Amino acid sequence: MGRVVQKYGGSSVADAAAIKRVAQRIVDTKRAGNEVVVVVSAMGDSTDELIDLAEQVSPLPAPRELDMLLTAGERISMALLAMAITSLGHDARSFTGSQAGVITDGTHGKAKIIDVTPGRIEKALGQGAIAIVAGFQGVSQSTKDITTLGRGGSDTTAVALAAALGADVCEIYSDVDGVFTADPRIVPTARKLDRVTYEEMLEMAACGAKILHLRCVEYARRFDLPIHVRSSFSNHPGSLIAGSIDDITKEVAMEQAIISGVAHDRSEAKVTVVGVPDKVGYAARIFEKLSEAQINLDMIVQNVSAAATSLTDISFTLPRTDGQTAMQALAALQAEIGYASLQYDDQIGKISLIGAGMRSHPGVTATFFSALASAGVNIEMISTSEIRISVVVDESEVDAGVSAAHTAFDLDASEVEAVVYGGTGR
Amino acid sequence: MGRVVQKYGGSSVADAAAIKRVAQRIVDTKRAGNEVVVVVSAMGDSTDELIDLAEQVSPLPAPRELDMLLTAGERISMALLAMAITSLGHDARSFTGSQAGVITDGTHGKAKIIDVTPGRIEKALGQGAIAIVAGFQGVSQSTKDITTLGRGGSDTTAVALAAALGADVCEIYSDVDGVFTADPRIVPTARKLDRVTYEEMLEMAACGAKILHLRCVEYARRFDLPIHVRSSFSNHPGSLIAGSIDDITKEVAMEQAIISGVAHDRSEAKVTVVGVPDKVGYAARIFEKLSEAQINLDMIVQNVSAAATSLTDISFTLPRTDGQTAMQALAALQAEIGYASLQYDDQIGKISLIGAGMRSHPGVTATFFSALASAGVNIEMISTSEIRISVVVDESEVDAGVSAAHTAFDLDASEVEAVVYGGTGR
Repeated sequence: MGRVVQKYGGSSVADAAAIKRVAQRIVDTKRAGNEVVVVVSAMGDSTDELIDLAEQVSPLPAPRELDMLLTAGERISMALLAMAITSLGHDARSFTGSQAGVITDGTHGKAKIIDVTPGRIEKALGQGAIAIVAGFQGVSQSTKDITTLGRGGSDTTAVALAAALGADVCEIYSDVDGVFTADPRIVPTARKLDRVTYEEMLEMAACGAKILHLRCVEYARRFDLPIHVRSSFSNHPGSLIAGSIDDITKEVAMEQAIISGVAHDRSEAKVTVVGVPDKVGYAARIFEKLSEAQINLDMIVQNVSAAATSLTDISFTLPRTDGQTAMQALAALQAEIGYASLQYDDQIGKISLIGAGMRSHPGVTATFFSALASAGVNIEMISTSEIRISVVVDESEVDAGVSAAHTAFDLDASEVEAVVYGGTGR
Repeated sequence: MGRVVQKYGGSSVADAAAIKRVAQRIVDTKRAGNEVVVVVSAMGDSTDELIDLAEQVSPLPAPRELDMLLTAGERISMALLAMAITSLGHDARSFTGSQAGVITDGTHGKAKIIDVTPGRIEKALGQGAIAIVAGFQGVSQSTKDITTLGRGGSDTTAVALAAALGADVCEIYSDVDGVFTADPRIVPTARKLDRVTYEEMLEMAACGAKILHLRCVEYARRFDLPIHVRSSFSNHPGSLIAGSIDDITKEVAMEQAIISGVAHDRSEAKVTVVGVPDKVGYAARIFEKLSEAQINLDMIVQNVSAAATSLTDISFTLPRTDGQTAMQALAALQAEIGYASLQYDDQIGKISLIGAGMRSHPGVTATFFSALASAGVNIEMISTSEIRISVVVDESEVDAGVSAAHTAFDLDASEVEAVVYGGTGR
């Protein structure tokens, strides 16, 4: 008995049969006495098909129009889902992001939610209806134009709506049974985690675990909203994302580090600005320029400058999709700063070890690096946080590194329990 | 130099190549110094594909959700068209029906436009942009739900917008070169009409000429807005729909009837209520019941009641798509009225002769009927107006009847000029 927001990804509504199955699951939740709000992605590959069409008519589609185009995908899936529920005898009404009150800024393609005013959803719930909401989309506060939220947008829609509606839980359905200690496609012995703290999940998401997007976990943490990650293809309980790592570490013996998993990411590229004069403000100019181009950086490493030359190299990683934009932005800066050259490498991967208490346990780092060395994996960059150690390696060495680390920290399950069905990005 | 509203049908934007060709035509119109607003239908068969999907998830899709689903079609085509124009170097912005201010009543599936408030379109034009508007859709004034306008909806959107924007002309592009004296697929010698009055076009549309929908012609006539019907596949001048038949008849010798064309329609069915007691108010009850079911009747014939039995038969024609609904509505009335039985026939067709001054020329009727008789066509029902004679015949005899009438009234061109490319309904 409560108020539940459920989110179904594209693979869960890939065709008519899948939509009907999801409809039944939603009706079951409603029959159990809950108020139900459903956030839905576009069907299967339909987003990619729309992008193909866009590229056929325009080499560089106008961002406003690309958003208008792509939002047709959720419009189709949400209307079909509402119809399927209605034909099971329950009142269901679909709402676009705009109708659901998802107010964003005006950055087409990766808009940020700035307010959620779900008056029409509340009204539908009050009338006993199930509300179906288009994920991934909103409406710009200033221009009233349709916007899309970018990667992870549907998950973020679900969490934001759940927070605005005061929901008890946000259930994120995908084709995976939950959050695992590593990607089961690479490590077949990976274990499902029953419970993960916001901080751990944040680090996992930031480090390439595709199960949940960073933004959505950040949003849930801010509003202390529990997320239940589970599969729409089974009835297994999934993983509950809730609570703070502080609470967890208090519960266990402080002498022990708790490694929750090994994440990896192949979506990044590495840029190196070679031979930057070691003057105050030059590094700042580089990162200002990248920020103006709306590029989110991940790891940043600056070598100590060689005293003889007073030149330094600055390396950073960023999403590969932003690579071209970043290189252009930096090229425009060469005259001003006078660096020597730019290097671009997209054949990299990132491996991250995540868990509580690792900073106070130097042994963790040693074990991690020695496991990688034994597997023949060469480390190119290193970055650490309170609960994470990440390394950049050659892309071809990612699988070996993940497996080696997983085994080194005794994360392997006694038997294989992971089922993976394929995946989508939105 | 002026303000032009152009409407492109589904066959004109069927794929990426077609969209690019249409984009070029729009840019040419803009370069000629015009302000341009474009109304666009869904791509090719995409609406049918969406309807198929709906039927897969629900035997009787909820009307509100079907509208939400179908409006995705125009959303896709309009965004693609705007992108294609932008990549030709012109500013283009797409707007949903709701954004364009197309306010309707709440009748899902066949909503009526009750107001057009194109503030955002005016603003876009004022900034030098080309505005692309989704045809066929609007937003309900009372519920704020998305609605569709039903058949002919995109044409109606174009004319309504043109009227609200004070446009000089509304150009309706399709795959046909204009309005012909008969369907060129049946009568290869049919001639294109350079000019057609609103009244003639109304009768033609009402009689099955698919080139323009009745609603759109009615709208244009009310606002005295010229419609230019032409092909998006050629640069031939099309047919101009403008002016009153009164003006035309004044220009020509009054002794002569002016037959403008022969239309036909295979989309109707005939219902006969057999053995209705000839009492005051019984016929009214029948038509009240049909009206409550939102069914538009076309021809209505009541036989003189046989004095001996005091029973009469009432026949009418209606869209085949409404046949099932009408039969159910009438069946519910049998107990109350006590008629004998219902007959349903969807193997019928309608042939209509349209032109000015025919009422005052009995010879027209005689020539028409004798041409049909010579062609072996049997007449089942007759209905006439000031500028039209329509007959219902067996569906298999429609082609022969149309050809015979066309020849009898000397409408055949000396050479074949019609080009027909296929067609869509929306």
